[in-house]
Amino acid sequence: MPRYRDLTHTARPSDAPRVVDPKNPIRTTDPGALQMLEMIKDKNIETVYDRVVAQQPQCAFGYKGICCRICIAGPCRVKKEDGPGSRGICGASAYTIVSRNIVRMIAGGAASHSEHARHVLHTAHALVDGHADDYEIKSPAKLHKLAEKLGVATLDRGDKDILRDVVEIGYADFGRYQDRPLAFLDSFMTEGRRKKFQHTNIMPRNIDGSITELIAQTAMGVDSDPVNIIFGGLKSALADLGGEYIGTNLSDVLFGIPEPIVSEANLGVINPKMVNIAVHGHNPVLSEMVVAAARAMKEEAVKVGAEGVNIVGICCTGNELLMREGVYLATSSASQEMAILTGALDAMVVDIQCIYPAVQTIAECYHTKVITTEAIMKVPSAQHIAFNTTTAMEDAKKLIKIAIEAYKHRDPKKISIPNEKHKLVAGFSVEALTEIFSKINPERPISVLTDAIQSGQLKGVCLMAGCNNLKRAQDESHITVLKELVKNDVFVISTGCSSGAFAKFGLMSPLAVDTYAGEGLKSFIQTLEAANPQLATGLPLVFHVGSCVDNSRAVDLAVAMANELGVDIPKVPFVASAPEAMHEKAVAIGSWCVTMGLPTHVGSLPPVEGSDLVYGITTQIAHDVFGGNFIFEVDPVIGASKLLDALEYRTWKLGIHRQTAEKNDTAIAQGW
Amino acid sequence: MPRYRDLTHTARPSDAPRVVDPKNPIRTTDPGALQMLEMIKDKNIETVYDRVVAQQPQCAFGYKGICCRICIAGPCRVKKEDGPGSRGICGASAYTIVSRNIVRMIAGGAASHSEHARHVLHTAHALVDGHADDYEIKSPAKLHKLAEKLGVATLDRGDKDILRDVVEIGYADFGRYQDRPLAFLDSFMTEGRRKKFQHTNIMPRNIDGSITELIAQTAMGVDSDPVNIIFGGLKSALADLGGEYIGTNLSDVLFGIPEPIVSEANLGVINPKMVNIAVHGHNPVLSEMVVAAARAMKEEAVKVGAEGVNIVGICCTGNELLMREGVYLATSSASQEMAILTGALDAMVVDIQCIYPAVQTIAECYHTKVITTEAIMKVPSAQHIAFNTTTAMEDAKKLIKIAIEAYKHRDPKKISIPNEKHKLVAGFSVEALTEIFSKINPERPISVLTDAIQSGQLKGVCLMAGCNNLKRAQDESHITVLKELVKNDVFVISTGCSSGAFAKFGLMSPLAVDTYAGEGLKSFIQTLEAANPQLATGLPLVFHVGSCVDNSRAVDLAVAMANELGVDIPKVPFVASAPEAMHEKAVAIGSWCVTMGLPTHVGSLPPVEGSDLVYGITTQIAHDVFGGNFIFEVDPVIGASKLLDALEYRTWKLGIHRQTAEKNDTAIAQGW
Repeated sequence: MPRYRDLTHTARPSDAPRVVDPKNPIRTTDPGALQMLEMIKDKNIETVYDRVVAQQPQCAFGYKGICCRICIAGPCRVKKEDGPGSRGICGASAYTIVSRNIVRMIAGGAASHSEHARHVLHTAHALVDGHADDYEIKSPAKLHKLAEKLGVATLDRGDKDILRDVVEIGYADFGRYQDRPLAFLDSFMTEGRRKKFQHTNIMPRNIDGSITELIAQTAMGVDSDPVNIIFGGLKSALADLGGEYIGTNLSDVLFGIPEPIVSEANLGVINPKMVNIAVHGHNPVLSEMVVAAARAMKEEAVKVGAEGVNIVGICCTGNELLMREGVYLATSSASQEMAILTGALDAMVVDIQCIYPAVQTIAECYHTKVITTEAIMKVPSAQHIAFNTTTAMEDAKKLIKIAIEAYKHRDPKKISIPNEKHKLVAGFSVEALTEIFSKINPERPISVLTDAIQSGQLKGVCLMAGCNNLKRAQDESHITVLKELVKNDVFVISTGCSSGAFAKFGLMSPLAVDTYAGEGLKSFIQTLEAANPQLATGLPLVFHVGSCVDNSRAVDLAVAMANELGVDIPKVPFVASAPEAMHEKAVAIGSWCVTMGLPTHVGSLPPVEGSDLVYGITTQIAHDVFGGNFIFEVDPVIGASKLLDALEYRTWKLGIHRQTAEKNDTAIAQGW
Repeated sequence: MPRYRDLTHTARPSDAPRVVDPKNPIRTTDPGALQMLEMIKDKNIETVYDRVVAQQPQCAFGYKGICCRICIAGPCRVKKEDGPGSRGICGASAYTIVSRNIVRMIAGGAASHSEHARHVLHTAHALVDGHADDYEIKSPAKLHKLAEKLGVATLDRGDKDILRDVVEIGYADFGRYQDRPLAFLDSFMTEGRRKKFQHTNIMPRNIDGSITELIAQTAMGVDSDPVNIIFGGLKSALADLGGEYIGTNLSDVLFGIPEPIVSEANLGVINPKMVNIAVHGHNPVLSEMVVAAARAMKEEAVKVGAEGVNIVGICCTGNELLMREGVYLATSSASQEMAILTGALDAMVVDIQCIYPAVQTIAECYHTKVITTEAIMKVPSAQHIAFNTTTAMEDAKKLIKIAIEAYKHRDPKKISIPNEKHKLVAGFSVEALTEIFSKINPERPISVLTDAIQSGQLKGVCLMAGCNNLKRAQDESHITVLKELVKNDVFVISTGCSSGAFAKFGLMSPLAVDTYAGEGLKSFIQTLEAANPQLATGLPLVFHVGSCVDNSRAVDLAVAMANELGVDIPKVPFVASAPEAMHEKAVAIGSWCVTMGLPTHVGSLPPVEGSDLVYGITTQIAHDVFGGNFIFEVDPVIGASKLLDALEYRTWKLGIHRQTAEKNDTAIAQGW
């Protein structure tokens, strides 16, 4: 049996610091952002790091989830332990209010990811209908694999015909009314999860309907049973996963499956000699075109005295382009304003999600043009260029032109670019990882990973994901959790702004392996490198699997490991961590991680502390039902040690399970 | 030109009392509720009237809409006029935060109404598929009318075949992805509104997708432009109207078109000699079966010593049954707990929406059984009997049996029923009103109403709708606004808990006409009565058009008037008022009222005061774009006078318009 590090870790983190310290206004550890802040310290510029301090102290009712604003009789707050002040006006208890609030965040996340997916789907639809000639099916291989999973015939058919059927299924996944499971979601589940979701009645029929139903369920005077509400929430969380699956897979079809690629990250990638355009947001549909247009328009940039057009990425649009095109990653979510403060950013082109409205306020102090492109995302005073898939390249060229024009208006006195930048290796789709593993075991590539765990070389796998949340200093928790995990031989894959943090700190570089990896992990990576001489680069300390919709790739890996081990996911030594979760999307992702059977660490508390019952369901009962559970822990070192505990426990149980299975083949089938 | 009563009315109502006075704990004016509270004053029972006092003072940030909890970096509050504390951590301004919050309430309303509609649609679907044998097509006439509007062929087809096609269109309205307008919504629009909605890009393609898109649009880091956000909100508001239209029309098909019917209201309808079952919520799909089952099971009640089974209604389920079956209305939303306090309520059977979780807490002090019936609506400790349309009558009988069993456990010492009850006349569907008007003018029945307005006999029409909101004492604002309007010869139709208030106070009785109606209204009603000797009853002071989904009936009337007058709705002397709005549904309804072109009074402030810009858009700019606008006014007398101003202005302009039109026939076509 594994040694448990510290039993007190299961205590609630209520006493831990949960709000920022107003006496320490430095709210980031990102070396690029720190340099930038130092450079502008004499200027009177307000950034997110000021605003987060100005918001202190934050409202404890909202923080704990016990403020209800679901009808306009309120706001109601759970003010007392008992008596009339312990409930909302309608009589809703703390557990009802907390559960309604938190599942509405899941609905927000599911809506966000599915809008992203819907946009990719529309683009694929326009392509097969001949209305999106600037796009192509870049990966027929992925299309065929996807079609096969979805039961779409491929024999003797053209790719566009196949894609048309896939798109039709995608649309049905948004709006189907028949009592059938979400096809994209159902296509990759383990048999155990499929049964579990049917048994607990949380398998969604469609995406939009699940979200609407959840919003209706949590309206005033509807569900007050926290358990029922949470199960409703989990249905939307699975709809979120379905949406992510559509987003990732169709993006791969249109833009290619990521492969190992070398690039650089942090603000130093902004090049003073070039026209710099940051693409920011989440959706590759526009930004892939911007990259193509930039390549085509180099000469126009040269005409105004620049050496060319330098596209840099921010947030998950940055991750999408880094993964497939090797585009430099300028920075991650919380430090997005910093890119403008360099004075050398000529345009910031945004699509959707995690875009601070503040970027326009700051851009107005510089020559930088902020340009919004989607109908549901505008920023007052910013320019809006409606991006249309039918005229994609033309629209993208318009954006580049605006940046080239802006370049002429740069104020040299305002230019100050941090010299911080790091080499990195990214592009680790599951296909890419499988390819690497297959050089060791071509028949059962995933066994390379599972065998390393079962032999004790690796402790397990951790998905590190999620946002920045300035309740703690930016990136500190990502970096700390990562260092703890790799030191203890955990194979780490990462997405979103967690990837952003590692990239900016140079931890996605092969060089970091020597410095930070434990002996087991180090030898595992070295074995992979030795078997893959075709790779132009060494392998990194942490494997970038993509943007936040690409958390679906982590599920693919977990499913592959479960199938390899002959168990369901809750028995796989696989955990997840969002050390700095912030967005509603993170709440949705965390919820399906738990539902899929993963112990899931969250380092920034969602508003659940106001109800012992809801807190208990998410951290304990969830484990009994789904085999996964939330681990709320604001201290990253303790958070990492709880993840290690969970991995050790699973590896230990897996050993016993394997022994039993050898004795009795039927044992494997008996549960997870 | 009409006389303007008071120009200062356009000032913001910020100085008006907006929170309850903790020194006056009597938070209702309902005579039944007042009697009940007097009867239990020595008992230590907590009700909504205590909880609303306990919540004072309510949080001003939430009240004004300037608290943001859309991501877990927050909660953020707009604390200062300028500097970093004037924005959220992401940089969202007050106008962004306020507009996001308010449109998410619209999404909540649209989701609520559409879940209701979806349930009716599923029932119709089960009926045509042969899985709901306890249901029937009670109104083939309505079905044919609806089919015709939707372009469904009816010639030589069976009713079930026609209904199948209608249902198919209904489902498509929930999940269609093609770029076509919502069919149910499009089917009854004026040409002017259709153009306006296309022009402003708010015509929804489907219901669920519009809601999801709006939630995504308002997620962290997406839209920060309040105008764009509000237009997104209006699209969902129209989706709400589409959902209501599906709900009302298919309910009429399945359960019959309401016709004038006599009944009684207030707590005195609870009969101590009978098994009393309250049906509470919104959806007639279950409650119609309960009524039928109660009639069938009289003998079983007699066996336990009761005289029979007495079904009484609460809230909008009550309104649905009152309209079609003449079921007594026990009480309205805010006083729902009072029904249990009588000690003579044996069961409260609930479906969805506006059901206080507190009913179970109170029921535990009595013998009353609270029974939930829908999968998305449970109450901890309450019994749950899953209601299934396939086994509808069987399920309904189970519910009645539980009530009969509970009856045996009544505690006679706890029985105290207020002697308050009033006769009323309800059942005024637009079809019923048209039938009444047609006795005067069979060719152009609606001209009876419009001519009365143009001649000055009536001042116009007002829809009174919405909930109870205990920010002011229950029902006081409904009653005050109504009295002011009818005194000034306004033809008032009402829905929801506004109808509930009038019914409970005896204002839906023909007797009230003499006491409260102005001379013009009185003579108009008398003329209608004289022309309709076939009616078994006189006509009421205020015309009950149904539950809150039945606000769609008000639109039908406004459209009919617009067509009769040859203008678009913004020129029709038609206004709306929700003096005690509370639910997210009310926010959605109010928003589409404005969008349809109606001046819309709201007596309980939605959270928009935190942004001058959003306040200005809703109260002023909306009028420039749509011809309707919000009138926020907490004082019901001033609110009513503003409605009268709006009606007078429209009637005056209509006179000018008609004169011009006589000179130039084309003028009518030129806009509203």
